[in-house]
Amino acid sequence: MGSVGRAIFANLRADSFGGPLYAVNPKHSSVLGVPCLPSVLAIPGPVDLAVIVVPAACVPPIVRECAQKGVRGIVVISAGFRETGAAGIALEREIVGIAGSAGIRIIGPNCVGVMNPHSGLNATFAASMARPGHIGLISQSGAVCTAILDWSQQEKVGFSAFVSTGSMADVEWGDLLDHLSTDENTRCIIAYMESVPDAHHFVEAARKVAQTKPIIVLKPGRTEAAARAAASHTGALTGRDDVFDAAFRRCGVLRVDTIEELFNLAEALDKQPPPPGPRLLMVTNAGGAGVLATDALLSAGGELTELSPETVAKLDAVLPAHWSHHNPVDILGDASRERYAQALEIAVQDPSMDGLFIALAPQAMTDPLAVAQEAVKYAKLSGKPVLASWMGGRAIAEGEALLHESGIPTYRYPDAAVRVFQAMARHSSNLKHLEAPIPPPANVATNPVLAKARERGRTLLTEAESKQLLLDYGIPTVPTKVANTEDEAVQAAAGFTFPVVLKLHSETITHKTDVGGVKLGLKDEAAVRRAFDEIRSGVPAADFLGVTVQPMVRLDGYELILGASADAQFGPVLLFGGGGQLVEVYKDTAVALPPLNASLARELVERTKIAKALKGVRGRKPVDADALDQVLVRFSQLVIEQPWIKEIDINPLLASAEQLIALDARVILYPADAPEPKRAALL
Amino acid sequence: MGSVGRAIFANLRADSFGGPLYAVNPKHSSVLGVPCLPSVLAIPGPVDLAVIVVPAACVPPIVRECAQKGVRGIVVISAGFRETGAAGIALEREIVGIAGSAGIRIIGPNCVGVMNPHSGLNATFAASMARPGHIGLISQSGAVCTAILDWSQQEKVGFSAFVSTGSMADVEWGDLLDHLSTDENTRCIIAYMESVPDAHHFVEAARKVAQTKPIIVLKPGRTEAAARAAASHTGALTGRDDVFDAAFRRCGVLRVDTIEELFNLAEALDKQPPPPGPRLLMVTNAGGAGVLATDALLSAGGELTELSPETVAKLDAVLPAHWSHHNPVDILGDASRERYAQALEIAVQDPSMDGLFIALAPQAMTDPLAVAQEAVKYAKLSGKPVLASWMGGRAIAEGEALLHESGIPTYRYPDAAVRVFQAMARHSSNLKHLEAPIPPPANVATNPVLAKARERGRTLLTEAESKQLLLDYGIPTVPTKVANTEDEAVQAAAGFTFPVVLKLHSETITHKTDVGGVKLGLKDEAAVRRAFDEIRSGVPAADFLGVTVQPMVRLDGYELILGASADAQFGPVLLFGGGGQLVEVYKDTAVALPPLNASLARELVERTKIAKALKGVRGRKPVDADALDQVLVRFSQLVIEQPWIKEIDINPLLASAEQLIALDARVILYPADAPEPKRAALL
Repeated sequence: MGSVGRAIFANLRADSFGGPLYAVNPKHSSVLGVPCLPSVLAIPGPVDLAVIVVPAACVPPIVRECAQKGVRGIVVISAGFRETGAAGIALEREIVGIAGSAGIRIIGPNCVGVMNPHSGLNATFAASMARPGHIGLISQSGAVCTAILDWSQQEKVGFSAFVSTGSMADVEWGDLLDHLSTDENTRCIIAYMESVPDAHHFVEAARKVAQTKPIIVLKPGRTEAAARAAASHTGALTGRDDVFDAAFRRCGVLRVDTIEELFNLAEALDKQPPPPGPRLLMVTNAGGAGVLATDALLSAGGELTELSPETVAKLDAVLPAHWSHHNPVDILGDASRERYAQALEIAVQDPSMDGLFIALAPQAMTDPLAVAQEAVKYAKLSGKPVLASWMGGRAIAEGEALLHESGIPTYRYPDAAVRVFQAMARHSSNLKHLEAPIPPPANVATNPVLAKARERGRTLLTEAESKQLLLDYGIPTVPTKVANTEDEAVQAAAGFTFPVVLKLHSETITHKTDVGGVKLGLKDEAAVRRAFDEIRSGVPAADFLGVTVQPMVRLDGYELILGASADAQFGPVLLFGGGGQLVEVYKDTAVALPPLNASLARELVERTKIAKALKGVRGRKPVDADALDQVLVRFSQLVIEQPWIKEIDINPLLASAEQLIALDARVILYPADAPEPKRAALL
Repeated sequence: MGSVGRAIFANLRADSFGGPLYAVNPKHSSVLGVPCLPSVLAIPGPVDLAVIVVPAACVPPIVRECAQKGVRGIVVISAGFRETGAAGIALEREIVGIAGSAGIRIIGPNCVGVMNPHSGLNATFAASMARPGHIGLISQSGAVCTAILDWSQQEKVGFSAFVSTGSMADVEWGDLLDHLSTDENTRCIIAYMESVPDAHHFVEAARKVAQTKPIIVLKPGRTEAAARAAASHTGALTGRDDVFDAAFRRCGVLRVDTIEELFNLAEALDKQPPPPGPRLLMVTNAGGAGVLATDALLSAGGELTELSPETVAKLDAVLPAHWSHHNPVDILGDASRERYAQALEIAVQDPSMDGLFIALAPQAMTDPLAVAQEAVKYAKLSGKPVLASWMGGRAIAEGEALLHESGIPTYRYPDAAVRVFQAMARHSSNLKHLEAPIPPPANVATNPVLAKARERGRTLLTEAESKQLLLDYGIPTVPTKVANTEDEAVQAAAGFTFPVVLKLHSETITHKTDVGGVKLGLKDEAAVRRAFDEIRSGVPAADFLGVTVQPMVRLDGYELILGASADAQFGPVLLFGGGGQLVEVYKDTAVALPPLNASLARELVERTKIAKALKGVRGRKPVDADALDQVLVRFSQLVIEQPWIKEIDINPLLASAEQLIALDARVILYPADAPEPKRAALL
């Protein structure tokens, strides 16, 4: 038994677990003075948990022994599996297979182990045991685990569970979330995530758990290089970061970007309720603190409570004339305990306050401990969080300690405190999405246009087919007629008001503009004939099936883009935003998981900048928001009900006060012989 | 003498200052056992510094006594001046006037005081003395001062100067920066800034000082509400935040957003050199740390060093097969002291590395202290900074302490460390702007178009005049002819190729579109006559001076905006960015102080998103970047040489591969009786 196994055995013995413990190693007679057994089968009585620490190649026979013995769970600490390549992957499959047939679940391989601080179980090789508490930790990085453990001891943060997951060959996110949802010691779950092996299970479990216990996830990979680094170090394929964002938002999971935020938020959500809204009221004796906090709050997307006239009048009655007269409520540098007390009593009664932030700088006339004694009277505001920042070091230490003890999360810097509030408000807002009902999985027939294309082995729909598909789902498109001959084109044009547009009709060429396949503003029959001829002569005969004819639409609205593509983990993902020639410059798009209802559609639209323009700017009339929501809802339904679509784009979707209309559309299908596509993660 | 005065006197006595000290108070016989003198004039011998702590109304006579006595400097602690309104402002002017005539400089009023920790002078009412060190602190908030002081004692950070400025009635930014530039104890300056009373002095001093000593400024006010809070609490009008950003960038001042960054950067720039470029090389035993750090680095605008093939080969030779093979260099969870030593020795030789980041998580096989002993060998890389993050608490404490002592700034979280590196890189990049020579103040004649308009008491130029002004400065515009009659309009149109554009010619109406004053795409003489008639009948006769005629330009490029407006503090400020109908939606604009040279112009352009499109996207040819730079340089010259311009906009400036041309322009002048406008801060 090497040093890691010895360390784990020592941890299991040293902590207060107290259950029967056996060492198994055929080559040794004893470990730490305890006699070794030659095999799992030699253990007297039933075994709940086996911790395996042997070279990877030796793991399968031991798992087999465990199966024979009827062991209920296994933690595989050993590395040397998927991260080493094909042979490792095969080995991993083998042990999961053996365990699965015997109904055993495996944590790992390649992990630090698990701890249950409440029962005293420490099945890890970490240097020490976590303190008992109410936070459940799940980490895909062993290093992050050990660092968090070390910090938590310094900061006196306690845990209900401490799980280093390793490769997640078997037990993964959904299992662990399901487990912690029923664990009565767990009030809040924090996770370091690099990849999600089973998106459906994760989404299902997270949506359920988040309703009662906050889930806070630190997931790096916002940048491509970070995603590559993660892929390299776990051997896992990470998905598109914006898709994770969309999934988290929809599941009520709160994403953070730093370990510090992970801690701060876990503490705050453990001690204080999430706010009913985003409006924070601040009381401070330091103007500078108020300015810094306001900046941080608004930059993070939060809002300041607008003081009611009653609140202002009441504050006027008790504060010196030069108080700020607005939020932040600056009660001035010489604020006494009594002045804080009076201001706080008035502040908490303001009807439009969603949370309270109390800041203090250790100025000459202010007693940090005495003010803390006043502040803690408001530690349990019903349904509204209270946070504090006592700025300073030694001078404020006593007051800060009292606030901590009384359940008011207190931060070193005012900006950190208000960022925590804003994240809590984001959590409240995320929880609302959980209320959106999810329809049962769609089980409808393949759309006839798609069916026909698939039958013929095609993977690209023509523009006319794409538009027909949209029409089938009630999404307005420019009327588009297919004309195989010049005469048919003339006849089709006559059915519209001139000018008209002719475009190449092809089952093989998707970028029509590149081959001169788009002719705009054709004013009469002669122009139509000329355009037909030019389009035909611009492409090989095999690619030319004729043209489509459509009326010329005046571009006097906003060009939007509405699309969907398949994510390897989460299935189809929707995209909405500003279109037009600068779409790739401004990248004003937002992503969501289908299905959408009207309010989710609205929320998707609101996450883009173009949303502001759609409401009517510079005298322009607004676009019909309800109608736009409906287009998005129908589009999401299309995407869900037609799983053979690999990519679909409406670009541009022209939006003005008068109309919402798809001017062009492009649909790419999976090949006919492709395996069943991944269904939407929410279904 | 009240409690504040008593506190200051006690501080002056308690600390190691040791110079002769007198208490002056006609109403008391002694303070803290020291006899009180009845007046400043009763002090024997010369007085270097007077600290005044009496009610505001009593300050002027005491300043008068000081002047009579020949006191050299005064700190006014008392509040009750500008923040109380008109009477307070008058009082403030009075004391500054008295002092000024006597050649005395005043710090304050309404401040906490000043400390010089090296000489032991503590003329503040703060609870304790700052530790001696190399950081000069200037703060406009007394509360931030006291909080920083308290923290600094806990964190063992030392200062060379500690100045609470109060209202800056006399001594302000420029004075303090000038002073600290020559103070040999000061290696780095940190500041909490809310407003700049004298922008010219600040810009001049900062540009000079920043060349040798980093200036790091925490200036809240990124959001409007924060600016309002600051305005309320200091009684000062704060300027536009984007203008401050532009001024800081141009002066080599590094702006931060949080107190934590202020500390972190001050420490890093004190201990390590700024990096020659933005590329960071990371070595870690924790994949997760590398991922988090990469995310933070790239999100902040930094870059990862691309490992050279030689570096990879050398690492291959010493590291286990599964090392990451790219940057971050993940030397795996079981990294020993020796493995770190080998990897670091190779890493620092990589030719494209601009800085080194070493991360460690306390894993089973890694000794945090031993690795720190290896790391400190690289604490002084020539011209390249080294930063570290030993993640954890107790397990890494010894190693962390060693790194600190050896001058390697070490952070709790890897993301914090790389953000510090990125800010250092931003500092290096800012310093380059200091090299741009500033031409002597322009002293040229008023442009004839402007002179004529001013003579006639007009403040709005016509479109034709605005374009003439641009042409006078070599900025291409659409040829535009003024036609007072219908016949003249027809004649003018005949000089161009049809179609043409007619616009209202007026000295009073600026928004021509709103009154039907713009007629596009006129195809023949008849259309011109009709348009003339329609424009004339759309406005009152007094506003109608005729029309302008110009050729219709095909909008097949990008619409840009180029403008300037006057800032109350910094004088004229330039704006460049994406124009068009969505200008207010995407707000893709950047701001700079004039004058520009070609490289500053390029830098301004590069700060917008549209810059990417201008380089040619989706098969479009690029816009001539040099020509665009020249337009910006000429425009900045125009703005500087014609100070009577209050606002000027070219919108749109049409940019394509073929041409750069101003399609419309608008110029607003100061009224003829306005006081001399503020000149550009850099001149």
